[in-house]
Order: sequence, then C-alpha cells, then structure tokens
Amino acid sequence: MNSPTLTWSNGAVKLIDQTLLPSTLKYIICRDVKTLWQAIKTLQVRGAPALGVAAGFGVLLGIKNFKGFDRQKFEKEFLQLCDYIGSSRPTAVNLFNVLTQMKRVVAAHPQASVRELKDLLKREALAIYQEDRRVCRQIGKNGQKLIKSGGTYLTVCNAGALATVDYGTALGVFYAAKEAGKTFKVYSCETRPLLQGARLTCWELLRAKIDTTLICDNMAGALMQQGKIDGVFAGADRIALNGDAANKIGTYSLAVLAKYHRIPFYIVAPRSTFDCQTPTGQGIVIEQRKREEVATFAGVVTAPKGVNVFNPAFDVTPHSLIEGIVTENGILKLPLPKTGKPSFLKNKDAFR
Amino acid sequence: MNSPTLTWSNGAVKLIDQTLLPSTLKYIICRDVKTLWQAIKTLQVRGAPALGVAAGFGVLLGIKNFKGFDRQKFEKEFLQLCDYIGSSRPTAVNLFNVLTQMKRVVAAHPQASVRELKDLLKREALAIYQEDRRVCRQIGKNGQKLIKSGGTYLTVCNAGALATVDYGTALGVFYAAKEAGKTFKVYSCETRPLLQGARLTCWELLRAKIDTTLICDNMAGALMQQGKIDGVFAGADRIALNGDAANKIGTYSLAVLAKYHRIPFYIVAPRSTFDCQTPTGQGIVIEQRKREEVATFAGVVTAPKGVNVFNPAFDVTPHSLIEGIVTENGILKLPLPKTGKPSFLKNKDAFR
Repeated sequence: MNSPTLTWSNGAVKLIDQTLLPSTLKYIICRDVKTLWQAIKTLQVRGAPALGVAAGFGVLLGIKNFKGFDRQKFEKEFLQLCDYIGSSRPTAVNLFNVLTQMKRVVAAHPQASVRELKDLLKREALAIYQEDRRVCRQIGKNGQKLIKSGGTYLTVCNAGALATVDYGTALGVFYAAKEAGKTFKVYSCETRPLLQGARLTCWELLRAKIDTTLICDNMAGALMQQGKIDGVFAGADRIALNGDAANKIGTYSLAVLAKYHRIPFYIVAPRSTFDCQTPTGQGIVIEQRKREEVATFAGVVTAPKGVNVFNPAFDVTPHSLIEGIVTENGILKLPLPKTGKPSFLKNKDAFR
Repeated sequence: MNSPTLTWSNGAVKLIDQTLLPSTLKYIICRDVKTLWQAIKTLQVRGAPALGVAAGFGVLLGIKNFKGFDRQKFEKEFLQLCDYIGSSRPTAVNLFNVLTQMKRVVAAHPQASVRELKDLLKREALAIYQEDRRVCRQIGKNGQKLIKSGGTYLTVCNAGALATVDYGTALGVFYAAKEAGKTFKVYSCETRPLLQGARLTCWELLRAKIDTTLICDNMAGALMQQGKIDGVFAGADRIALNGDAANKIGTYSLAVLAKYHRIPFYIVAPRSTFDCQTPTGQGIVIEQRKREEVATFAGVVTAPKGVNVFNPAFDVTPHSLIEGIVTENGILKLPLPKTGKPSFLKNKDAFR
C-alpha cells in the first residue's frame, strides 16, 4: 500500500524523515548506528513497531564494522551496543523486546563464530522486519470487523504505515476496512505538540483515499457530544499485563471522553507491545520531552520566556476504559483474565 | 494591575495587538470603525467582555464623522453601524448586548438632537468601560473564595486582563486570590489553534508573578488523573438561561474530564454574558473559523493539502457539568431555578 517507512538496503537503513512530512518526502540513509540513534531520538523515525524494526537494524549497523574473531570481545561490544540503542527512547517497549530477542540469538549459539553470529543476527533482524509486515496485515484483518460502512471514527497520533514498516496498526484497521469495500470517515487528532496526526496520519490516509478530517485535540469532545464519532482507534507504545496501555499524550483524555459518551475505545497493537515485566500501567515510566516542543513552533516563540512547561510524551489509559485490544491473534476482551502471568498472551480464549 | 487592553483616547480606540503577544507588546490606534472591525475579526482584540467595550467604542468611532443635524438620517446610519459592528464576531453576546444598550440610549431620548445623542452615546460607552473594570474586580473578589492556598488550578484560553479592560474574569479570580495573600499554581492549556493560553494567559500570569505552567490541551486529562488539579476555571462567551455555557473550543472536553475526576469546574463571567434570548445551549450558534488556523502555523504547512479541517471556535458545556458560575453578584449555583424567565438573574437567592 505504501512505500516502506524503513528498510535494510545495501548495508544501511533507509528511512523516511518523518519530521519533514507532509511537505517533503525525503529518505535518510543511516550507515552507522549513531545516525540511526539520532534519527530515533529526534523522531525522524517513530512509532512503537517501527522502532522495534529499527532497533534490529541498529544492531546490524553497530556490528558491521566489528573486526576480528574474538567472540568474547564481540559479545561485550554487542551488549554495549544494545544499551546504547535502548537509550534512544525509554518508553517504546518494542525497541527493548527486539534487543532482548537479538541477545537471545547470541546466547542460543554459544559455539558460533563472530561471522556466524553476524549472519544469525542479520537473519533475525530481517525476520523481525517481515514479521511486522505480516502482523500488521493480520491486525488490520481482525480489527476491520469493528468498522461499519457509513461510520465515522477517531484516531490520534500516527499508528499507521509510518509507525510500522508499511501498513500500520490502528490505521491498518482502516486500510483493511477499505480493502474490504467499506466506506467510512476518519477524524484525525492533530496530536500536539509535534502534530503527528496532522502531519503523518492525514498524509497517509489521504494517500489511501480515505475521507479524512483534521481536528485540534481539544475538538474531540465536541465531536463526540454531537454524536459524530462511532469509535476511537489508538495505537500503543507499551501495554501492561492487565491491559493498561501507554500511548501518545492525549490518548487517556480521549478514552475518558469516549467512556462518557458511550463510544467504544480500542487499542490496536501487536502482541509484542505487551510488556511482560510490567503488571499494571503504574509501572510504566513516562518520558518527559523538551520545553521547546511546546513553547516554540517552527522557530516562532509561542509562549513567554520563563514560563514552566509540562511535556510528557505519553499517558496511560487504564484497561477499564478500553473496550478491547486488537492484536494479530484477535481482539483481546477486557478486563483480562486474572492469571497473574503472561499466559493469557498465549491463551486463545482471551481473544474473540 | 495591568495596562489597559483597550481605552478610548483622543477620539480613537487604543488597543494591544494580541496577535503579536507574547513576543511584542504593541498598541494599535483605531481612528475609524473599519480598522476596529478588522481588529475584532482578526482577533487583535478578543475576549467577550473586551468585545463589549470595543463595540461601544466602535459606535463612537462610527458616529464621530456624521455631519449635519438630521436626526432621522443619524438614526438610520447608527443602526447600520450597529449591524456592521455586530457582523465581526457572531458568537460574542457581550458585543450584541452593548449594541442593544447603545440603541436603547437613542430610543430613550426621542427629543435629543444629533449633538446630544453623540454626547449620550459617548457617556454610555465610557460607562460600559468603567463598569467592566468594576465588575471584573467584583467577580475576582467573589471567585477567590474558591482558591485555597497550596492548590493547583487549570484554565483554558484567555479569560484575563487581555479579554477585558484590565483585570479579567477567570484570571481575575487568580489575581484576587493573590491579592488576598494566597499562594497556588496555575496550569494554562495552550488552547489550539490560536494558542491564546500559551501566548496570552501565560504572559499575563507571569507578569502578575503567579506560578504558571503551560501544557498542551491534550495533557489536561493526564494531569487530572495524577491528582494534580484542584479546580478548573474558564470564561464564557455566551451563557444560556439554563446555565449552558459557550466558551472556547476545548472547554467542554475539560468539563467532562473534570466531572470524571470529581474536580469542580467553574465558569467565570459577568452577568452580561447571559443571553436572555437563549433558553438552552442548543440555541447557541457556533462560529466556524478558517481552515488555515489549523492546517498552517506561522506560514509553515502542518497538514497535507486537500485534507478537510473542522475548526469550530467554541463549544457548549451543559450546565450539568458546571459546579457554579462566578459572577459579580456571587456564585450562581447550578442547576438554576426553573423560573422559565431571566428573573433569576435578579434573584439574590440564586447566588451564594
């Protein structure tokens, strides 16, 4: 549907510079891990699933120039590399999950040479890339059942092709619904401060020829009050084991507004977004971002000097406000069974 | 406390160009009504009470150059002038109330000469100006009882000195609380799309040395979830007779969020904001504003070409979400007594 957001190409990571959208479609070539780290940090590439794929590719960039055959030295540098990549965005669990997956590859092959490890890691990173493409399409297929022709839906930030390799999670639901022949409208919250909804989601949805209307974040309540919204679909950056979901700041407000107006609110995310180390949303650390993101725009000062700024990147929506979590295995009903263990993630009964 | 937002000075209206704040404090001199109309239309002057005062001054500018002594001709031009001024902002009831008040002056003096009418209208416009100063201070006095030392409060848009002659309504509550020796914090919603909260409210509150933190509108819910907000104070552009209040877009969302988190939500406005012609909020017409306000910023395109934009200037908060309306006569308890008539506005029992 879309040209890939990021790919592995000739020993480098090729990615769309999302900070230039919607005006300019420009690709960045990251030939070293520092350039990729910077791209993650400055949100040139963003979106939980895309960050997972990027982390895998980041490992490939980092080990590319390792010289010699000393496996112990390789492992040490590899672990430092993983820490370095992990320091770019603390909230995105997919990034850490992929790093853990890469570490497992190394641990599972204690006899492998440095050269063999390099090959195994490359195979793993490319498999993660392909898995994202497959998983997103399956999520879309599962979620599109929730879309009815003639309906109007709301989304926030960008859980789209630009947040994954090429299809999206929450927006993947819309793409799959369109492929299934349904007609519907989408409202996109602009998503302050960085306007991912205005810049990225509107750009994507227009390219897919979906009827799209942009609103400021503070207009969602008025739309719901007027009966104009049939459902809310949001992505997630990290989901606790009880279903509490961290996503872009403002998601929680939308979930409360949806509950008040009796509108179903869905989280759409791959199962890899579940963080098996985190029982509830209270354990999720929220990244604070720079003052300038809120107090200036395109170099123009929008707030007086010296005023304090509160700028959390994410908020946590408790599972009680979530109707269901759409994953590649189906739609997870909430509240989740109290197993106390991540076993529900394998339990087919949890999915409908 | 502040230098006046607008004054009548040497036969002209002198007003702060609020579109240049917070970077530049610059005054505009309006010597004719067309310049003032433009200043209202382009939000160089804004805020319901300030617009009322501006409308009175606008009449003075319009009649200034009327030549001759033909009262009938004067009256005809005067009524056309009132229609013209009224066309600048359709939602602000204060503007229409003042125009009605000015019309009453003319109607009440059927024997007066053109020269006498000009004097009477000037006296009326200046009385409205002085009344705004008195009323805002009284509103502040009444409302500051709701502020407790050590508390943290949320406000939206700019219901401050810049929305009135020089003291404010919702922000007047904070000024009066500070004058009463209380210490407290204020969070200011930036208020998309035109950022009146970031640009104007933060500027005002900083000048008044009140501890102020700027947030994006979509962060309010997360703050409330964390127990950081003790009360919400918003202004109003028009209040229906049942207490439903039209105010800047986003106010309704804040009221729903406050209700969900059991935080008291107050509307702060002079009694002149009540529209005796409008029984409920359903009768309030909401002004739609330009696409560009949302889709561009400071000349930078922030949304793709061709995307639809929904940009209502206001929303209506139903009285059921409002704890009370702070006016110059006291705090009006909601729901209002069902008199079916605007008599409650004179009924002291409605105020506590």
